[in-house]
Amino acid sequence: MTYLRNCWYMAAWSDEVSNQPLARTLLDEPVVLYRDAEGEPHALFDRCPHRFAPLSAGRVENGILLCGYHGLGFGGDGACARNPHGPITKALRVTSYPVVEAHRAIWIWMGDAGRADPALIRDLSFVDDAPDTAFNKGYLNGTGNYQLFVDNILDLSHADYLHPDTLGGGAVTRTPAEIEERIDGIIAIAWRPKNEVPMPLMADRLPPGVDWVDSWTEVEWSAPGVMTLVNGAVPAGTPRSNGGNVFNLHILTPETSSTSHYFFASTRDYAMDDAKLNEATRKLREQIFSTEDEPMIAGQQKRIGDQDFWSLSPALLKIDKGAALVRRRMDALIQAEAK
Amino acid sequence: MTYLRNCWYMAAWSDEVSNQPLARTLLDEPVVLYRDAEGEPHALFDRCPHRFAPLSAGRVENGILLCGYHGLGFGGDGACARNPHGPITKALRVTSYPVVEAHRAIWIWMGDAGRADPALIRDLSFVDDAPDTAFNKGYLNGTGNYQLFVDNILDLSHADYLHPDTLGGGAVTRTPAEIEERIDGIIAIAWRPKNEVPMPLMADRLPPGVDWVDSWTEVEWSAPGVMTLVNGAVPAGTPRSNGGNVFNLHILTPETSSTSHYFFASTRDYAMDDAKLNEATRKLREQIFSTEDEPMIAGQQKRIGDQDFWSLSPALLKIDKGAALVRRRMDALIQAEAK
Amino acid sequence: MTYLRNCWYMAAWSDEVSNQPLARTLLDEPVVLYRDAEGEPHALFDRCPHRFAPLSAGRVENGILLCGYHGLGFGGDGACARNPHGPITKALRVTSYPVVEAHRAIWIWMGDAGRADPALIRDLSFVDDAPDTAFNKGYLNGTGNYQLFVDNILDLSHADYLHPDTLGGGAVTRTPAEIEERIDGIIAIAWRPKNEVPMPLMADRLPPGVDWVDSWTEVEWSAPGVMTLVNGAVPAGTPRSNGGNVFNLHILTPETSSTSHYFFASTRDYAMDDAKLNEATRKLREQIFSTEDEPMIAGQQKRIGDQDFWSLSPALLKIDKGAALVRRRMDALIQAEAK
Repeated sequence: MTYLRNCWYMAAWSDEVSNQPLARTLLDEPVVLYRDAEGEPHALFDRCPHRFAPLSAGRVENGILLCGYHGLGFGGDGACARNPHGPITKALRVTSYPVVEAHRAIWIWMGDAGRADPALIRDLSFVDDAPDTAFNKGYLNGTGNYQLFVDNILDLSHADYLHPDTLGGGAVTRTPAEIEERIDGIIAIAWRPKNEVPMPLMADRLPPGVDWVDSWTEVEWSAPGVMTLVNGAVPAGTPRSNGGNVFNLHILTPETSSTSHYFFASTRDYAMDDAKLNEATRKLREQIFSTEDEPMIAGQQKRIGDQDFWSLSPALLKIDKGAALVRRRMDALIQAEAK
Repeated sequence: MTYLRNCWYMAAWSDEVSNQPLARTLLDEPVVLYRDAEGEPHALFDRCPHRFAPLSAGRVENGILLCGYHGLGFGGDGACARNPHGPITKALRVTSYPVVEAHRAIWIWMGDAGRADPALIRDLSFVDDAPDTAFNKGYLNGTGNYQLFVDNILDLSHADYLHPDTLGGGAVTRTPAEIEERIDGIIAIAWRPKNEVPMPLMADRLPPGVDWVDSWTEVEWSAPGVMTLVNGAVPAGTPRSNGGNVFNLHILTPETSSTSHYFFASTRDYAMDDAKLNEATRKLREQIFSTEDEPMIAGQQKRIGDQDFWSLSPALLKIDKGAALVRRRMDALIQAEAK
Repeated sequence: MTYLRNCWYMAAWSDEVSNQPLARTLLDEPVVLYRDAEGEPHALFDRCPHRFAPLSAGRVENGILLCGYHGLGFGGDGACARNPHGPITKALRVTSYPVVEAHRAIWIWMGDAGRADPALIRDLSFVDDAPDTAFNKGYLNGTGNYQLFVDNILDLSHADYLHPDTLGGGAVTRTPAEIEERIDGIIAIAWRPKNEVPMPLMADRLPPGVDWVDSWTEVEWSAPGVMTLVNGAVPAGTPRSNGGNVFNLHILTPETSSTSHYFFASTRDYAMDDAKLNEATRKLREQIFSTEDEPMIAGQQKRIGDQDFWSLSPALLKIDKGAALVRRRMDALIQAEAK
């Protein structure tokens, strides 16, 4: 399928990439990620130009990625840096992708390398600032086109039905989303229920006797699939500044047209030294995403198959406004790039 | 592939369908089967019109099938009966298939709903009348086009080679089939060997010293793949009315072009309160079908692949007369429907 | 894909073929191999002409291969030899392939049967002469087009990188191959390093204190994928006649366009009664081929996919000269046959 190419995709968490080559398919292309002797991350097309062995089956030596089949070595720029069998020719070159390490992640640019400006990476510095005891993350290789995973975050009313005992409760369903298209390319979708039931997970953290809350869930999407999600709650009628915030990250990168890399993370501005809470949060999120969201999205993918989403005439509801806006935006960006 | 659409297909055994949705692919279409609050069975296209989640991943509440993703609810007629997110529009509708419960089974009509006359369901009332101690059944999700499974029952000479120690013996091979096309659409194929060896399974039930029997095996097929099979044996030269009958059911419904739903059942008019015999019969049939018939048919399917059966010019024998007649009949019905 | 047809392919080791039918896909065709009552091997198209059951699901009785579904029997010539259901007609015939048993193997001819001259089978009599204690063999059903497996043997520099601790060492990389095209169709590729490090596996067998050796590795390929490989080493500067030789066999037969039958064997002219050494050699080779070569070749296949090898413009090196010559030879043979 056609993907947006001139943008930064998250390729991996920083700690997934080491001097052991990591094979990862991104936008249908096999990519190998590794670090050189200085710890700098690199991404190359994962196919040796010699006889097409996967470079990821090799190893890094002195900062050079060596093919495990015949020992050809390549630098981070894709040029051959070692040929034990003769001269280094121009043909001995593999595609190199611009990469940047930022916000605990490796970002890759799979379009025109000349346009790969690191300043275009979304500012996620809240992730950098979080102490380890208040930062947790995960990764899921999920079945389903990346847009289905993006839809899932942009329409959080699903939590009331798919996660009724944890993230649901009903308040989001009863609260119209506030949607805003910003000039910096961000599409913001927020739910701010007043005097409503808290989500079950939050109920524990409220003072005893508090049954009704004012809460907020604020998603900010930017292309291709980078989303922040901030949420919190306070006893109904009290100021928001009294409450804590959870800052979440949901980042989707296409693996193939029907599978996705789903990176997620969470930090917070309260109980920041509580390592136990942090680990419990990590576990619970991973469990919810892998046993509730992913199977449902995999089910959608199965029912959609190879068909185009719009060609099936989805019966969109008000709750889909944000997700539809984002899909239309992505369609427009991809079309513009095709020209 | 093209299937006959204006006919009743068996979709499930009655006891497979409950208020827990059952997902089943029929004629290449995903279908969800469930019962409403009154216990009435329903069948809907298993894809929510909203964003294409499988409805079978949801649950039944107050007789309404709720999508597990965003809580939309649908009635047995396919119309939306609940939308927690706004008004119920005409677009919120899913295809509903006529279903009828009869003869311990759920029957589905996947053609023109206006023509779905319950009277067209084959009369299998012998199944209704059987006490539980004389009724046993099974289900197999088999590899192989449904016509290959139908062929298998219409040419029982195979038992002499594929099931030599149980259902074979040789008598069917040595006895020409009597074939009759009836005006009610039934094609009847019968083998009635005289003074022959009994099938090994029957040998035990004969009086001591009896080595030769007169037996009968009578198959009645109707479209699309509903077959009854009655068999029994008596000492050679004695009247058939002296002997007991086993009444079998073999029903095939296409899942895809290369896989089938195989429903089978058995009852009898002797030892009707013998629960042990009943269970032994159930077990043995399931074992024979799953370890002898299904693997052979799966092997045929593998060798045929995507090719049309007739295009491979099968070297048909006299034993194939009944099965070929049925294949030609099905071809004609499907062609007539295409007009 | 298009295969060379008028040549002998190795179908199996002799001891794989018995009176129990063996199903094996060769050149994308399902074949059944079996022995008749006299022990003669036969190969038939593995699909009964009656209703397309795999003949390999049947059994051999009185030297005749019986279909397990309806008892039709076929002789080694493919003609029907038994029909329990009526007369034997001309339609009851299955394709029979010429087969020859030689050099502990069964060879099959899948082209024009009239041209199947046993004299065209490569002379591998060193295999016949080897005592059991000096002969070991193996079989691998590997992922990867057969040409990739052939390339692997024709460019042994790979051993220096893929098998550094056993078959590598570096000497082959440093030694240009001597390549010879012979008039009998053999392409010979030899490496004969002088005063070089021994391969790690050989180091043990050298006299104490010997660090440098003269060694030889001589591959002889003939179409479609039959290769002998002789190697040995002596202390540097001493005559080759002082050293022992290992005689290896590497034979590739296409299963499908992306999978191969890999037959390998080894014998030697020293320590010929050492059964322990023999078994250790067998085990080690099987381990190296299955855990090092096959995964790398499967990786190449994955990266190549359905694309033509040449269409990807491999950046060939000097080390590929032999393999490229063989690929061009095979292309020419296949093209010539297409006319």
